[in-house]
This record gives sequence, structure tokens and C-alpha cells, in this order.
Amino acid sequence: MSERIRITFLPGRHTGLFPPNTNLWHAAQELAVEEIEAYCGGNGTCGKCRVRIEEGEFPITEADRKAFSDDELIEGYRLACQAIASQDCLIWTSRADEKDQTAILTEGLHQEFEIDPVVKKTATHVQPPELDENPFDLQKTLAAAGLQSVQLTLPAIQNLPETLRQHDFSVTSVVANGVLLDFEGGDTRGQGYGIAVDLGTTTVVAKLLDYSGTVHAVASRLNRQRAYGEDVISRIGHASNPEGLKTLQKAVIDLLNDMIAELLETVKGKREQIYEMVIAGNTVMEHLFLGIQPKYLAEMPYVPVFQRPPLVRAVELGLNIHPNGWIYCFPLLGRYVGGDTTAVVLSLLSRPKQETWLVVDIGTNGEIVLSRRGELSCCSTAAGPAFEGAQIRFGMRASQGAIERVFFTDGDLQVHTIGNQSAKGICGSGLIDAVGTFLQAGILDRTGRLLEDKDMDSKLTAALGSRLRGQDNDRRVYLTPAGKSEVFLNQRDIREIQLAKGAIATGIEVLLANAGLQLDDLDALYVAGAFGQYIRVDMALEIGLLPRISPDRIHFIGNAAYTGAEMALLSQTQRRLAEQIPDQIRYVEISADPEFQMRYAEQMFF
Amino acid sequence: MSERIRITFLPGRHTGLFPPNTNLWHAAQELAVEEIEAYCGGNGTCGKCRVRIEEGEFPITEADRKAFSDDELIEGYRLACQAIASQDCLIWTSRADEKDQTAILTEGLHQEFEIDPVVKKTATHVQPPELDENPFDLQKTLAAAGLQSVQLTLPAIQNLPETLRQHDFSVTSVVANGVLLDFEGGDTRGQGYGIAVDLGTTTVVAKLLDYSGTVHAVASRLNRQRAYGEDVISRIGHASNPEGLKTLQKAVIDLLNDMIAELLETVKGKREQIYEMVIAGNTVMEHLFLGIQPKYLAEMPYVPVFQRPPLVRAVELGLNIHPNGWIYCFPLLGRYVGGDTTAVVLSLLSRPKQETWLVVDIGTNGEIVLSRRGELSCCSTAAGPAFEGAQIRFGMRASQGAIERVFFTDGDLQVHTIGNQSAKGICGSGLIDAVGTFLQAGILDRTGRLLEDKDMDSKLTAALGSRLRGQDNDRRVYLTPAGKSEVFLNQRDIREIQLAKGAIATGIEVLLANAGLQLDDLDALYVAGAFGQYIRVDMALEIGLLPRISPDRIHFIGNAAYTGAEMALLSQTQRRLAEQIPDQIRYVEISADPEFQMRYAEQMFF
Repeated sequence: MSERIRITFLPGRHTGLFPPNTNLWHAAQELAVEEIEAYCGGNGTCGKCRVRIEEGEFPITEADRKAFSDDELIEGYRLACQAIASQDCLIWTSRADEKDQTAILTEGLHQEFEIDPVVKKTATHVQPPELDENPFDLQKTLAAAGLQSVQLTLPAIQNLPETLRQHDFSVTSVVANGVLLDFEGGDTRGQGYGIAVDLGTTTVVAKLLDYSGTVHAVASRLNRQRAYGEDVISRIGHASNPEGLKTLQKAVIDLLNDMIAELLETVKGKREQIYEMVIAGNTVMEHLFLGIQPKYLAEMPYVPVFQRPPLVRAVELGLNIHPNGWIYCFPLLGRYVGGDTTAVVLSLLSRPKQETWLVVDIGTNGEIVLSRRGELSCCSTAAGPAFEGAQIRFGMRASQGAIERVFFTDGDLQVHTIGNQSAKGICGSGLIDAVGTFLQAGILDRTGRLLEDKDMDSKLTAALGSRLRGQDNDRRVYLTPAGKSEVFLNQRDIREIQLAKGAIATGIEVLLANAGLQLDDLDALYVAGAFGQYIRVDMALEIGLLPRISPDRIHFIGNAAYTGAEMALLSQTQRRLAEQIPDQIRYVEISADPEFQMRYAEQMFF
Repeated sequence: MSERIRITFLPGRHTGLFPPNTNLWHAAQELAVEEIEAYCGGNGTCGKCRVRIEEGEFPITEADRKAFSDDELIEGYRLACQAIASQDCLIWTSRADEKDQTAILTEGLHQEFEIDPVVKKTATHVQPPELDENPFDLQKTLAAAGLQSVQLTLPAIQNLPETLRQHDFSVTSVVANGVLLDFEGGDTRGQGYGIAVDLGTTTVVAKLLDYSGTVHAVASRLNRQRAYGEDVISRIGHASNPEGLKTLQKAVIDLLNDMIAELLETVKGKREQIYEMVIAGNTVMEHLFLGIQPKYLAEMPYVPVFQRPPLVRAVELGLNIHPNGWIYCFPLLGRYVGGDTTAVVLSLLSRPKQETWLVVDIGTNGEIVLSRRGELSCCSTAAGPAFEGAQIRFGMRASQGAIERVFFTDGDLQVHTIGNQSAKGICGSGLIDAVGTFLQAGILDRTGRLLEDKDMDSKLTAALGSRLRGQDNDRRVYLTPAGKSEVFLNQRDIREIQLAKGAIATGIEVLLANAGLQLDDLDALYVAGAFGQYIRVDMALEIGLLPRISPDRIHFIGNAAYTGAEMALLSQTQRRLAEQIPDQIRYVEISADPEFQMRYAEQMFF
């Protein structure tokens, strides 16, 4: 193997091995370090990729001098996109402080459960066998450990005789889910790890924890299945024949094995020390991960194969932890409300029972869960495509040149693009801003109609001038000044946003109505996932994407699916609670709601 | 593949594929068809290999004309050693009638239990999913089949969505041991097989049964592990390092896979239709089969690794039945009293509870089990080597040239050798006969001393003449006339036989004494295994190898270990009974009995 250097980003501990002279920004992208952005595309001009060097040598570049003060340069600040790593290094991301808050929230949830893992270790000294008894190594060991009723597995007992005799008949039994995983020589009670995984459509995050709850290493990567389609529907399409299914399963298993190797290297550990993986994935991710055909999810009446996936041994999936180790996947709640949502619910179950809350995860599918004083219901809405740029004339993903903010200042429309580049299009947060701004400015009415000049305030018409053009379905609002890289939204785009916004709002309404609740009854609205962190709450409220409640009741809870996975790894009580969620939650198929069409039509109003 | 012909021997249904123009005797040897012998070594002279052709063309040979009457030739009698099979054929062995009696005994035991296999099939029609429910293929199917609490396995559910939709949502669930093995399309309740195996040190017998109890095919082969040692101790020696263990495990797994292929070909079946294998093997055979190190069995204090082996999936051992199918091995009873003995006990458990019986299996280890009105105890004795020819000057296995019978007729010693050949040595049944004859003739006293001429009847001395030579430890009895291929037993040989006989008799005595019983209390003495069928009961009683009870209480029960395996395959009640045997039986370590030495010394007397 050629020489490699280790690049680690803090505070998330994203870490990986790279060839010498790797650009830090490229490394960050490969490791899916969300905190590092480079709006300028790595030209050293936007200053968004600022990092602080904790360990490692990085000469000050021309661009660094422009971006940082002398003090900052001395403190070790650099632009990641200009920094070339020639040796092992430890890098603080510039958003460390923001991230710490999420981390604190996560910690806060942790404190509410007792650590009591599914994996149990029992250290035993076995009386050496004598002639005048009828001894069996296994039965003596099990009796000494009080494990007579444990379910046995062949690999766990194959090494027992040698293990006993090499360790003076002292042995530690490893048991999980009522099954004997292994016998280890001596007293190994303090040792061993588990891995909690957020298996996302786009990003996969895995953390290695010991059973005291300490995180020892973190790895995050882009899901390699992206090569077969960005969204779950296109992945289902690719997996709809056995070959394709195998390909997609292999992509994610190989990826996880790479991540496991990376995690193990960080702690200099062996695969046999990892006894369990807990996986939180959406319906399609869990089907593909387990090699189960998901295609009937994409056809009426949209049927997943399983609700509760079987517990699986690592060796069955080819995952390189202890071969006898368990792979636990969260149960699904219904159709596109998957195991990740179950994990999100788990992370919120410790909320006081008398609290009524709603959690919304705005992605390709807006999954929504309502807790009415502990009574749970959920739904998914086909909300995503518009906010991810699909079906919008100038829609695009949140990358350089995307308009992410729209303001109405000094009587004119102003925009901010990612990377401060000339605008190429508009991304999700930009769309929310744009619509909110149009409403506030009086260009758009609450029915979603872009006003004609004659219906508007004449001062406004005069101020905006040529920004407003066309008529009817092609009525346009130009977000950029005339002439140069023109980006506009037209009436059709607004209607698409209305559909998406309406879907989520309808989902929220249907859940509330089903529970006999009003908006005011909500004690809290949680926004889970990454997307939530980039939108402006006031604008999301303005357009009605989030229901109009007091902003102080709105909480961004970050990667709650991962939090749930960690809880299920560290506590069998939490695992049991997770297993009970499907029976306690009512899945609401909003398209089957008799008033769906009417509600949806109404919720189109901004 | 080059052309093959199928040769099948009845009534045992031993069957196999061979190249065209295979000698029937060679085929019989390869298939371990015990009924066909050829004492003459295949020269067409002894007439012991007579068979009757049921199907197939075999021209009459010169040797056939000498061996059979015209009527017999017309009926299809032939000498197997002279018969060349050029096409598929069906052959009755000459001992068919004798074998039928064993078969009847087996059947007799069968009738005493109800067939109720561990493998259960449930056929279900699942209501096709609708939009207004929250459907999951798996959960709907399990609910329809009433199997909500069954343990799931990944392979069992991977094909479910297609299976349901290709069979109009009609599906059959296959469940065994509380675990879902598979879903099969349509109603397959009448289909499916299990395999019962007697995994012997020398011979492996496997039968394919359906779950009504019908035997569809039988395969028997010599255990390929014989290449690594004839007895269990030498196999342990070979397996005492991981490589050797792997080699021995592979030898038996490969052999079983060949046998499975053969069984499947007979019924034109698929491996997925075989859901289970039940294995009855001795302690060492089960350890090697499962790949578990047996070496501590050969060292003080003689410790097996497991008493109850884990249930194992076929795929874990690489056995080519349904990959999810179960492999069940009988639990062991203690040290060298293995799973085969448990199976023997199972086959006798249906004896009336008030009966007191003893079963003895005289092989390398004489395993003995006593039932005192249902109260069970067992022991093993190191009895075998002498009766298998070891440590006897002219000892040999039961093959051509071995003296198998010894008579004292007309004042002289006469012998019969296997194959009527000139004597090369003496086998187990010959040894029993010889010692019994010596005792009856007055050459040997009950203490095991070969008498000197002066101590004998003078007429006897005169009659035997030069048959008696030497003195003290080299006192000899020549079994063959002087000059030509002389075979004798000397005082040392007699002592070896005494040791072996004494070991078994001591085992029987210790078990009886432990239970507070006398010989007369025995209602029945069962002799299990093949060896029993070749000894003369009167001679075994004469020398005290079998305890001196009325011969009408002695029953030869043939391959009772196999019978037990079949019972455990066909009845979960019987399986449960088998699982309870280790807890109900007392293992007696006779070498740890305080009076062992004394008893042993006493039992040396013939």
C-alpha cells in the first residue's frame, strides 16, 4: 500500500486516509463534512471554507492573507480550499460553535435515559473439570455464568476449549438478544464497541461508541448508491431486478465496511470487538441494505415488504464487525415513513407525556409525526422535489451560484448566491425566501397569484420596473437585474412551490385534525434533519411551510435519526421503546383521507 | 459429464451412480451394502455374494452356473462379484429376508409414536394490499398464517414480495423450531423432506423421508474420515490442530453432500425441499462434524466441549439442503457416551415404563444404558480394541481369511474362515467363539488360565495333540492344524479378551449395582449395532460378554441409533424426549467407581 495520511475534522471527528498533498476542501467533501462550504468553488475568494489548524503544517497563502487578520493567521486560521495537507492533521471547522449547540441538544436527550446496552458481558471463573464429574466445557461455563437458557451459536463455542485453557478457565460471555455471541478469554467486561448509523439517501454517518456511551470515532460519507440515482424512487427503479438490487446492496455494504475499517483504525481495534450495529434508514434504504426488493413501494398501493426487519447476523450481510454480531434496523412505520422516522420519534419520546408536539423532516418526503400527549400519528407527504429544485424552471441543488437568500430592500429585490457568484439558479432555501419576500412586498397574493402591474401599488411597479414581466402563466419575477445571468420565477414555479408547501401543510393539518387539535395546541414544533438548519424560520412561517405558531416553540433538533440510533445502541429499554413505536403510532395515508383534496386545495394558500 | 448408470440395492435402497460396466460387488462395497459379502475376495467361489436381479440384464457366467440351480438362474440369481452392470439396475441382496426382520422391528418401534414433525407448513391466502390500509407484505402474511410471534430470518423474506404476487397472494409458510425457514408460492403442504443420518465412525447411513414418514431414498457410504484413522482416538489425534480439524470436518461434510445429491436425484428433488437433517453421532463424530475441537476428550479428565450442541443452519456448515434448513445433532450423555447412544435410548423409550432393560452397543467403546423402570443410567467402557482385533497376536478385522467361527467337534478344534480361505487371523466373533469353545472343551478355566497338559483330561490332551503348546504366558492353542498358515491364541491374547470382556461386564455390573439390581431383574437385554448380529449368543453368554440371562430375553435391535434419528425427525414429541434424556440419565464414570478395580478383577472371570 502506498503511503497515506490521516485527515481529521473536528468537532465531528470525520476522519479518513488520503494520499499526501490532498486539498483539505476536497477531503472535507469526500468525508461529507457539512460545516465546510466553498461557495466560490475553491478559488479562495469566498472565505466560507475557513478552518483552524489544530495539528499539522500549512503555509500561509496569498488567499489566506486576504481572508484573515494577522492574529487569525497566527491562531492557525486557513482557507481549506487553498490548504494542502502533506502529513497527518487535525482540523477545526469554522462552524464548530454552531455544531456544538446541536451536540449539546443531543447530549441533553442522552441524559434522559440510562445506559443499559443490549450487549451484556459476564465474566466467570469456571471450576476446572474433574474425572469424577460428567463435565462439558460449554455446559459448565454456561452454568457458572448463569446463562443456561441462552441460545447458542456454533461460532461462539468453536473456540471455547482453547479459550478456557489458555486463560486458566476464566472467560467472559458476550450475550445479546438472548443469543450467545462469543466467549472471550479472561475478563473483558470493559471492552467492546457498537456502531450507530444514520443511513441516509445522500449521507451516511456512523459513530463508534463503547458501552459507556463514549463516542470514539466518527465517519461520514456520501452514500455510494447515489451513482444509481439521487432520490429513492430512481434507486427503486434501478433495484427492480435482482441484479440491480444486488448492486445497490453491495454499494452500501462496501461503503459501511470502509467506514468500519476507518472507525477501527482510529481506536486501533479489531472487528471482533464490535458486537452490534444499529441502523436508522428510510424505508427504501433499509430494504436495499437488507437486499429486499423495494419495487412494490413505487407501485399502487405502495407496499413495503416488511415493517419489522429480522435481526440479522453481520456475517449474513458481509459486514466486517464480529461475524456473530447483530445488525438491528429500526422498524418502519408505514410506506415512506421509515426507520429513520422511528428513530426520530425515539429521540423525542422522553418529552413530557403531557406535551403535544409535532416533528417535521423536510426532505424528498416530508415525514411528519404528531404526539398528542403521547398519542402518536404520522404521515409522509410528497413534498420534496420542488424544494430540491425539481420542476422549478431555474431550480437547482444548494451548490455554488444558487440563490439562497432573497431580500426586498430599498424598494428593490436583492439576492445572495452561494459562493457570491453570478446567479445560476435558485435552491430550496432561496425559493422559500423568494416566495416569502414576494408576499411581503405585495407582488404575490395569498392565493399564489403573481399580481399584474394594474393590481399592484403603482410605486411598487415603478420601483421594480423591468423585474416584472409577462402575463398569466408566464408572469415572471426576475430575481436578478436585467441583462446578466437572468434568473426568474414564473407563475408555474410558484404553483409547484404551492403544491409542495401545500403537501406538507396538508400533512400537518390532517394529522392535527385527526387528533382533534388546533395549531395552538402544539407545545413544540421540531424540525429535524439538515435542511431545516438553512431555512429562515420567519420566511418558512410567512409562506406557511411551517405552521404559524410562535417561533419560540420551533426547535431545530439536527440529526435526530442518528440520535435515536445511538439511544437504541446504548439502552435496551430504548430499543424496546423503539420496537413498540409501530404499534403505538397511527400511520395516516393522507391521500386516502376523504377530505384530502379539499384540505390540499385550501393549504395551497400561502 | 460422462455417462453414469444407477445401481440400486434392495431392500435397503442403497443407491449410487457409477460408470458403465461396474462390477456389482464393487458397487456394493462402495455403497457399504452390508448384506453382500465376498469371502473369496471376488473370485466367484464362495457363493456369499448371491443377489437376485430385479431389473437389468446380467448374462449368466461360468461361476453362476456352479453356484445356482437352473431354477435359481431363471429367477435371476447371480453372483455379484461376477456381475457387470452395463445399465441402470435394481438388485435384491440375498439377505433380504433377514433384513426384513430388522425392518419389521424398526417399523414396530415407529408405530409407537405419532408423526408430528418439527417442520410445520401453513398455507395461507393473503388479502391483497389496499391503499387505505398500512400494508406490509410480511406482516400481512404472518398475521394471515397466525405466525406473528415466529422468529424471522433474512433469506426467508427476501423473495416474499415476488412469491406473493406470482401466486395470487397464496403462500405456504415453513416454520421449524419457532423460526421461519421460507415462504413457498401456493399450497405446498404435501411437499418436503427431511434426512435422518446415522453418522458412524466407519459407516454413514442417510435416508430421505417425507413428513408422512415414508422413506424415499437411502444412501450409505464409508466415512471418508477413515483416511485419517480407523478409530476415534486416532481421528482426535489428527484433528488436534485447527488445520486437521478443518480437514476432518470437510471430509464428512463433503461426504454428506454427495449423499444428499444422491438422495435428491432418486426423488428428482431440489435442495430447497429438504428442511432438516437429524444427526446421530458419537461424541467425536459430532464434534468433528460441527468443527469443534475434540482433543480434550483424549486427555485426562476427558472433557467434551458440549453436551447439547447448538441448532445450526445448513448454510453454516455448507450442507446442500435448504440453506435456511436446520441441522439437529443429538445431545451427548457423557464423555464417550455420545449422541448415537441418546438416539438408541430414544428408540427404546417407548418400552413400557415398568420394564427394566439394558442395552449394550459393542463397538470400539461398549456403551451401556440401563433403564430401571424408566430410571436411566449409562456408561462407556473401553471394550472395543480386542474385539476389533487390536492387541491380539493374530487379531484382525472381519474380512476374508479371518476365523469367524470356532467349534470343538469330534474331539478336535475346527474353524470357519470368512471366504473359506486359509486362515490369516481371527476376528471378534471368532474370538468369542474360540474362548467359549475353550471353556466348554476344558482347555481354559474360568479364571482365564489356559490349562497345562497335566491339568487336563488326558483323553483331551491326546485328542488335541500338537494343538496345545508352550507354557505360562506363551501357552498356545493352535486353531489351525500344524504346518499350514498357523493361527493361535496364547495366554496373553486370552488376557486381552478378558480385559475387554471384563470391561463390558464390569460396566453392566456397575450400572446394575448402582441401580440396586440383579441380573434376574432384567426384563430385556438389547444388543444394538451391527456387531451384535454376527456373534453367537450362546458363546457370548458362555464367556460372560453378555450377562447370563435367558436367551429369550436377548434382542438384537439393529441400527437403533438410526431408528432414533428417524423418530426425532418425524416427531417433535420424540425430539423433545431426546432433549430430555441428558437430564434424566445418570452418567456413571466407571473408572471413578471406588469398587471399580475390584469389580473389574472379578469380572475378568469367564
